Amino acid sequence: MLRRLHLRHARRPRHHSSAAAADAAAVPLSSPTFSIFGANTGVGKTLVSAGLVASLLAPPSPSTVSYLKPLQTGFPEDSDARFVFDRAPALLRLFPRAGGGATRVVSSNHTLFPSPAVETLPERQDTVVTYGGEGDGERVAVEKTLVCRTMYAWREPVSPHLAAEKEGMPVEDEEVRWVVDRWLADGAKDGDGEVWKVLETAGGVASPAPSGTLQCDLYRSSRLPAVLVGDGRLGGISSTLSAYETLMLRGYDVGSVILEDRGLSNDKFLLSYLRKRVPVHVLPPIPEDPKDDLTDWFSESSSVFSLLKDSLQSFHSRRIQRLNSMQRKSKDLLWWPFTQHDLVPVDSVTVIDSRCGENFSAYKVKDKRIVPQFDACASWWTQGPDSNLQIELARDMGYAAARYGHVMFPENVHEPALRCAELLLCGVGKDWASRVYFSDNGSTAIEIALKMAFRKYACGHGILVDTEKDITSERSIQFKVLALNGSYHGDTLGAMEAQAPSAYTSFLQQPWYSGRGLFLDPPTVYTRNRTTHLSLPPSIWHDQLSSCDTCFSSVTEVFCKTRDTSSAANLYVSYISQQLSQYAMSNSSEHIAALIIEPVIQGAGGMHMIDPLFQRLLIKECKNRKIPVIFDEVFTGFWRLGVESASELLGCLPDISCYAKLMTGGIVPLAATLATEDIFEAFRSDSKLTALLHGHSYTAHPMGCTAAVKAIQWYKDPSTNSNLDLDHMKLKELWDGALVNHLSSLPNVKRVVSLGTLCAIELKAGSDAGYASLHASSLVRKLREEDNIYARPLGNVIYLMCGPCTTRDSCTRQLTKVHRRLQKFN
Amino acid sequence: MLRRLHLRHARRPRHHSSAAAADAAAVPLSSPTFSIFGANTGVGKTLVSAGLVASLLAPPSPSTVSYLKPLQTGFPEDSDARFVFDRAPALLRLFPRAGGGATRVVSSNHTLFPSPAVETLPERQDTVVTYGGEGDGERVAVEKTLVCRTMYAWREPVSPHLAAEKEGMPVEDEEVRWVVDRWLADGAKDGDGEVWKVLETAGGVASPAPSGTLQCDLYRSSRLPAVLVGDGRLGGISSTLSAYETLMLRGYDVGSVILEDRGLSNDKFLLSYLRKRVPVHVLPPIPEDPKDDLTDWFSESSSVFSLLKDSLQSFHSRRIQRLNSMQRKSKDLLWWPFTQHDLVPVDSVTVIDSRCGENFSAYKVKDKRIVPQFDACASWWTQGPDSNLQIELARDMGYAAARYGHVMFPENVHEPALRCAELLLCGVGKDWASRVYFSDNGSTAIEIALKMAFRKYACGHGILVDTEKDITSERSIQFKVLALNGSYHGDTLGAMEAQAPSAYTSFLQQPWYSGRGLFLDPPTVYTRNRTTHLSLPPSIWHDQLSSCDTCFSSVTEVFCKTRDTSSAANLYVSYISQQLSQYAMSNSSEHIAALIIEPVIQGAGGMHMIDPLFQRLLIKECKNRKIPVIFDEVFTGFWRLGVESASELLGCLPDISCYAKLMTGGIVPLAATLATEDIFEAFRSDSKLTALLHGHSYTAHPMGCTAAVKAIQWYKDPSTNSNLDLDHMKLKELWDGALVNHLSSLPNVKRVVSLGTLCAIELKAGSDAGYASLHASSLVRKLREEDNIYARPLGNVIYLMCGPCTTRDSCTRQLTKVHRRLQKFN
Repeated sequence: MLRRLHLRHARRPRHHSSAAAADAAAVPLSSPTFSIFGANTGVGKTLVSAGLVASLLAPPSPSTVSYLKPLQTGFPEDSDARFVFDRAPALLRLFPRAGGGATRVVSSNHTLFPSPAVETLPERQDTVVTYGGEGDGERVAVEKTLVCRTMYAWREPVSPHLAAEKEGMPVEDEEVRWVVDRWLADGAKDGDGEVWKVLETAGGVASPAPSGTLQCDLYRSSRLPAVLVGDGRLGGISSTLSAYETLMLRGYDVGSVILEDRGLSNDKFLLSYLRKRVPVHVLPPIPEDPKDDLTDWFSESSSVFSLLKDSLQSFHSRRIQRLNSMQRKSKDLLWWPFTQHDLVPVDSVTVIDSRCGENFSAYKVKDKRIVPQFDACASWWTQGPDSNLQIELARDMGYAAARYGHVMFPENVHEPALRCAELLLCGVGKDWASRVYFSDNGSTAIEIALKMAFRKYACGHGILVDTEKDITSERSIQFKVLALNGSYHGDTLGAMEAQAPSAYTSFLQQPWYSGRGLFLDPPTVYTRNRTTHLSLPPSIWHDQLSSCDTCFSSVTEVFCKTRDTSSAANLYVSYISQQLSQYAMSNSSEHIAALIIEPVIQGAGGMHMIDPLFQRLLIKECKNRKIPVIFDEVFTGFWRLGVESASELLGCLPDISCYAKLMTGGIVPLAATLATEDIFEAFRSDSKLTALLHGHSYTAHPMGCTAAVKAIQWYKDPSTNSNLDLDHMKLKELWDGALVNHLSSLPNVKRVVSLGTLCAIELKAGSDAGYASLHASSLVRKLREEDNIYARPLGNVIYLMCGPCTTRDSCTRQLTKVHRRLQKFN
Repeated sequence: MLRRLHLRHARRPRHHSSAAAADAAAVPLSSPTFSIFGANTGVGKTLVSAGLVASLLAPPSPSTVSYLKPLQTGFPEDSDARFVFDRAPALLRLFPRAGGGATRVVSSNHTLFPSPAVETLPERQDTVVTYGGEGDGERVAVEKTLVCRTMYAWREPVSPHLAAEKEGMPVEDEEVRWVVDRWLADGAKDGDGEVWKVLETAGGVASPAPSGTLQCDLYRSSRLPAVLVGDGRLGGISSTLSAYETLMLRGYDVGSVILEDRGLSNDKFLLSYLRKRVPVHVLPPIPEDPKDDLTDWFSESSSVFSLLKDSLQSFHSRRIQRLNSMQRKSKDLLWWPFTQHDLVPVDSVTVIDSRCGENFSAYKVKDKRIVPQFDACASWWTQGPDSNLQIELARDMGYAAARYGHVMFPENVHEPALRCAELLLCGVGKDWASRVYFSDNGSTAIEIALKMAFRKYACGHGILVDTEKDITSERSIQFKVLALNGSYHGDTLGAMEAQAPSAYTSFLQQPWYSGRGLFLDPPTVYTRNRTTHLSLPPSIWHDQLSSCDTCFSSVTEVFCKTRDTSSAANLYVSYISQQLSQYAMSNSSEHIAALIIEPVIQGAGGMHMIDPLFQRLLIKECKNRKIPVIFDEVFTGFWRLGVESASELLGCLPDISCYAKLMTGGIVPLAATLATEDIFEAFRSDSKLTALLHGHSYTAHPMGCTAAVKAIQWYKDPSTNSNLDLDHMKLKELWDGALVNHLSSLPNVKRVVSLGTLCAIELKAGSDAGYASLHASSLVRKLREEDNIYARPLGNVIYLMCGPCTTRDSCTRQLTKVHRRLQKFN
């Protein structure tokens, strides 16, 4: 066991790519692990570490304590690991012993990667000491192990980022994380007894790591609970609370605050202020005389360290207990959307402990581990943040809540709403939109869009001559939408009515649904066997088309404007106009008053890529007939498909478009319906009755708008999004083309659609229609359990979805796993 | 001018009530004002103050500089105001002079309230000094004024909270704020030239004030932009960034960071980290020798202080410029809900700068002032936070964003969602609900509730025998709701269908609306002429009722269960059953499949109190007929009416109920639909098709759930909500009964409804129907402009709405203003 904890396999990954290429590792909760953060330098972190380690070594539990100092400067004169190694075992005598007998402590100290400037390399230290209380000859009742390690050490006693630069030993974050992850993963085997781990950070909570990343950010991915060593000096209340808030702003839980008593009663104030939040412990004054060997101080402090240990132990048990109970409780109390509860076994519920960038951390009840999983469904397609953006958003969310909370919107203006509107209008609304209407989610944005379109249609077609009067005879006029089969626009009734009938719109689900639309069958595009195919629905007669119309060497070709004069274009035009004429003849009181489409990709309908040529012609036809055009960009907007707005792919513009999901970076709900000035004009008059009388309480809530402002800018700023291809203002290819082609050639794959942040794979159905969907479910289970990819099946489609800033490396890693898994499934 | 700035009127408000009773004062932006915060003690705040003041005194502008030290300890030996007074004018010579001539500085220093322990009270100091550069006899070209003030001073050099306690001079927050507000309001008159103000805080950003409130919280209401004096020492990067984050978590803007160079390049790191956010200035090392008179240091630093001044000046101009442009831009880019843009003059747009508890701060373009306004519409009825809850929520929002961002919900569980569900089920859902379905807003919560009710009805009445098949013939069955005229349930189509026809549901607004309900006329209750009246609609025949059935001495009587056997009860029962039977006879294919009501108060319909007896009997009748009962508590829930759920007032329970608005404390959107286990059962089977297939991307988003967890607990915890009457688990009376009675007797008042956090007043309509509404609009204008009450009219109803924790004092202050205004309007 001891050897495992030596981390002897940890060779420094000098080629950073090998570290960077790894996904974050699991954190076993079977070993309680805490990080020691300081409110400042010089507040006694190492004394706390030594005292805590000693209290842990004292019987009865645990059997092994592992102490890690990832970053040490001023080495070898300063070595916190050596201090702990030297002092902690000797302090054992201070703690009350359970039962008789002596305690033998086998301890070691080792420094893994000293900088070249460190001249005298200390040897690895090993000692065995026995503390028996009264007599030396006492029988050894307990054997304990203490492992102390320093990861990276620099000569200069300055901040690691300066030392790293001066001494020519830079260390990338990924490397530190990789090594820490290994230390975390290295655990006790059954029967070894309990292992506790203590990680001591360097400097204050926000002191820079070698790369310049703040330490609170560096260690965030494993989100170890923290012990915050507070500051007992004058001003220490402020610095302790600020440090506490910095940790909260990174999503850390603080298990305990501990600080020195310097006669200013800082502890009393903190105890009262942090009441109900975190226990506060107070240590006797630390002798200032550097010659003092602290023996007396440690002796006085031992009871405090025992209390600290107890409170951390209790923190840890409560955490585990709660985590263990969450599956059962969620099954009993929650009502999940789109979920048949009877089909969800209690042990299949995913307990999510936290999120960090593209991954969330799931707690595995069986083996008590926190496992990072790549959020391949992008949490219902909402997610945009990498871990840096998440930190920025967290700070902004705190700021917006503190500055604004929420404030009333109509006839008012506040900076986040105005700024957000400006960014929308010069971004996704560029060259066409002039107004922004805020609401809460995609579904409400669609209902608003429909109301806008209908009004515009009514005004433009002389249906509402006198807008002041609401003539009941107008109720005989029926407004319908033109839409595509397989489209999805949300789950509120108005949005549902714009969708074709399906299981989701059945009487069972929504007795009020009637399907108020003319729904056309769209042609789709996909990759199969390394070739891009066009697939026409039976309703579009197609023996005129040759293979040069239906096969393409790449998806790019499909978007080519030269296709506007192809045979496919003629075929589409005649299909569309025939459908519209036929409808007009048979429904005299009905008007097609809006076109609504998801541009390019139909998401919920099964990740189908619609032939952009077809959509372009449809839009043209509607514009000719003065039918307002709505783009539902709830899914497709904000770089989901590699461009800020999917209208750039189609090459044409809407009259109205709807945004949500990615708009806020995926952190909080907010939606926007953008419209042209023409649409807005249809609501203007001198009467309130003609205004758009639709609103929600949190319209344009400052937190949502603040998040959107940050996210929209972040995605399109090359200094924060390295995926940007600035020349074409689109994302570079994220999914490896060769791998996608491989996938598309697998025998169990029916089609692949890969565009922007999306790579979707439809599995081949066997003779049994339900088979593919079962197949997808079991594949998804494997991906979750063995590959740490949290995918969610969409019928027989599985997909990977990343954020606009996710590195191509990460995408390749995930896609490789899916490929491997699919190969095995054959 | 000088005298005004002496604050000679500022007598210490020893009776705190007089300070506490004042609303927050306006902050004039005509005088640029900054607060100096320190990353820690001992980082040189006062040196920065002195240097900044000197740079400001240097010609050309401004003409007057006012420096304030609200809290000073260690007095009189330590007096930061004296230091500034002594040093700043002399430093003038360091700054380049514009044009020739000497500068005369008239300065004064005065300490207002020294503690009793301060033995030697320093005299008020006044000096006039002239700096002319070369010769003494030079002509005085510019005259400048420097006013230095200390507000409260204590003897001991410790934190103010300790000094205040030891020396027996406690100071309440309200008192400090009141004095600071006066200092802020005291400004230059036209022609006096520009005045700059500098407020220097004590200790670090989060050091306690005398009351124990953190200073960053104490000064939050005026939200002065900050200069953060950073820390150049080892560990100073961390403490500077943490302090910066603490200021952000209070909603402050930091105009500049300035710190001493201690050879550790902290400034370089901060410059890079804070790039794009805030300028960072670096000062030469401060001599450590206490005998050094700092002359050389100030001389070296003068160019840095000039830069600091420039960057603050530019910060201030940009702020004003943006604020001045926001009305115009909002008119051009935004599309407000429920607003006829043509009726909103550009200068009537309210520019909201921030919110603090129950007030938000509006920027008045005309006189460049930030004016706190009581948010009487509670920002569409969402607001719950007092200023303390807002701070807590801000920290929690930062934490939740950092820990979770957003994560997928179905088949998953995370702590905030689970905890929120637990709190809902043991709170508003107590004794009846067993499941929580999350969504985004009131409207979606209602659509979900309707889907739940319809399914339950269908299952319970044998309409869906085989839930697997969706037999199209069932489409011939029409499900309707039973609802009340005047009710409102949201603006999405499904929610609208459950409302009676009105201007909001017209063809103009929503061509798809048909009004799928049987809408009954409800009896209402109100106060007029100090008496509570019952008003019956014409459709309820009522000459059986005597005045003892229709007049009550108080609203409490109306809720009395003894009325269940009154003549009114009989009348209601027969009205209800007659309506139901009549409907059943004439609509054979239609089923009343749900009852939906806003319990007790109809909000959007005009703040009508519905006779609770009527609602109770209606519910009973529906329960008898196995019609599921939905409570729309979006408005009424979470103490809005003085109890956590309005069902407590009615004395009966629903099958389904909907919550939103106040649930998150009014900070971020979140909604919940609660249901009984019976309702949930109707969706269980072994098929996904029978599950409730309705969801939104941000379902149960962690930030919303985290806010709800905090708010729900905050409202019902007597340690945080002093309005709680624990014996009856309801809020104490917030609106002064006598005042309400007075109001109800005014000749221009038609009725008053006062319950819980709501006090609504309907104005009497004259002969002209539109008159009262115009009357309300002009009243609202007066309230906004002259009384600093941001009310919003609801037709001819004006109302005040506070939060569950708003003090009765504040309520009385606002109500008194409304009363006075209404009297004048007669």
